[in-house]
Amino acid sequence: MNGALALDRVRIVLSRTSHPGNIGAAARAMKTMGLSRLWLVAPQEHPSREAWARASGAIDVLDAAHVVSTLQEALAGTALAAAVTARRRELALPRLHAREAAAELLSHTADGEVALVFGNETSGLTNEEVAICGMPVSIPANPEYSSLNLGAAVQLLCYELRMAALAPRPPADPRPELATHDEVEGFLAHLERAGTQSGFHDPANPKRLLPRLRRLFGRARLEKEEVSILRGLLTSFERKVD
Amino acid sequence: MNGALALDRVRIVLSRTSHPGNIGAAARAMKTMGLSRLWLVAPQEHPSREAWARASGAIDVLDAAHVVSTLQEALAGTALAAAVTARRRELALPRLHAREAAAELLSHTADGEVALVFGNETSGLTNEEVAICGMPVSIPANPEYSSLNLGAAVQLLCYELRMAALAPRPPADPRPELATHDEVEGFLAHLERAGTQSGFHDPANPKRLLPRLRRLFGRARLEKEEVSILRGLLTSFERKVD
Repeated sequence: MNGALALDRVRIVLSRTSHPGNIGAAARAMKTMGLSRLWLVAPQEHPSREAWARASGAIDVLDAAHVVSTLQEALAGTALAAAVTARRRELALPRLHAREAAAELLSHTADGEVALVFGNETSGLTNEEVAICGMPVSIPANPEYSSLNLGAAVQLLCYELRMAALAPRPPADPRPELATHDEVEGFLAHLERAGTQSGFHDPANPKRLLPRLRRLFGRARLEKEEVSILRGLLTSFERKVD
Repeated sequence: MNGALALDRVRIVLSRTSHPGNIGAAARAMKTMGLSRLWLVAPQEHPSREAWARASGAIDVLDAAHVVSTLQEALAGTALAAAVTARRRELALPRLHAREAAAELLSHTADGEVALVFGNETSGLTNEEVAICGMPVSIPANPEYSSLNLGAAVQLLCYELRMAALAPRPPADPRPELATHDEVEGFLAHLERAGTQSGFHDPANPKRLLPRLRRLFGRARLEKEEVSILRGLLTSFERKVD
């Protein structure tokens, strides 16, 4: 795929941003690298004069931003989502560095839109938000002071995306089509339902079952056909149970 | 040379900066990437409350900054200086991209200190300033909007310097123990049994079901605990079927 076209399929998602100036800085950073799709999840203050001032010549990116109330809405229809996180997590998937993650995300733009998610300035992303995304990403920063400003972090990842988009790539192996975010969520909900019905999963005492399963299937990057096989299996189990 | 030592030999030089906030943002960007030597050439306003506020946890970098009145003073004693510039220049030397320039600068740290020079926010570097430095550098930005914020440009170049110096990998997260080959095979056999019993899988007409499932779970590199969760689920389905 053409590099500019690939960049046009990357959503930058800012979750629960506190400072409107950072929203403007992110829009500017995106546009300098040729990205334009900005999604804001429950921003503390938006629209704001400050965001528009900091966006400088990138007000078109701000004007076109989608504002939604949950991360799930911002990821609807995406083929792959990456979560930018500085912290180690329990049950963590292996983290990719910014450069590897940019290449990986772009390689999936042939399947549809992809997303790169940034958390709140102070608290970052919640464990739940990271779990919703399939791929944790870290910026290799100074371990003694890794506190990048939000706009700077967006700048850096968008730069890596641009570098990856413009780099000549070897022709890709034919890859089966990945399941969309919604399809994976539908499967996980089905699995939960079947597991509850069979008595394995107790919603009143969930332990870590669902996060574990979410992590496993997120790591696998399910294909469309695999989701339909797995759902067929679940349905066959349910029929017998009825 | 040791990577951290090499980074310690890079001066970031900001020439004629207009907005003190950008000086603070630059200090913060430097420190996140392990750089600490900041030189300010004729800043419009310094010291300032705003710079210290924007520096966040990098006030040590600001406190130690050298303030001089000419670029020549800031470059005194350096082995190589690079000028960050977006514009093409008449009679210009060939420009390097940020990534190449970072590698080139670092390769000269064995000879002594090196410098990376950033111009004024609005007017950039003068032709004379670029000429004083041996090496023009550009950030490969969107040709239709290449206006990076000064702090963002410093962040990006310092990141490339760090990547070049350390070629770092994310600290390995503690990884849960992977399932053995036999455990994975045991699970796949269990899945086949349960799927046959439920009627989803017909051994007489297997299609590609088992190879597909084997491929999916192979790709995921199952962990011990995941195998036992999945087998628990299967057992719960079987019990209901019986």
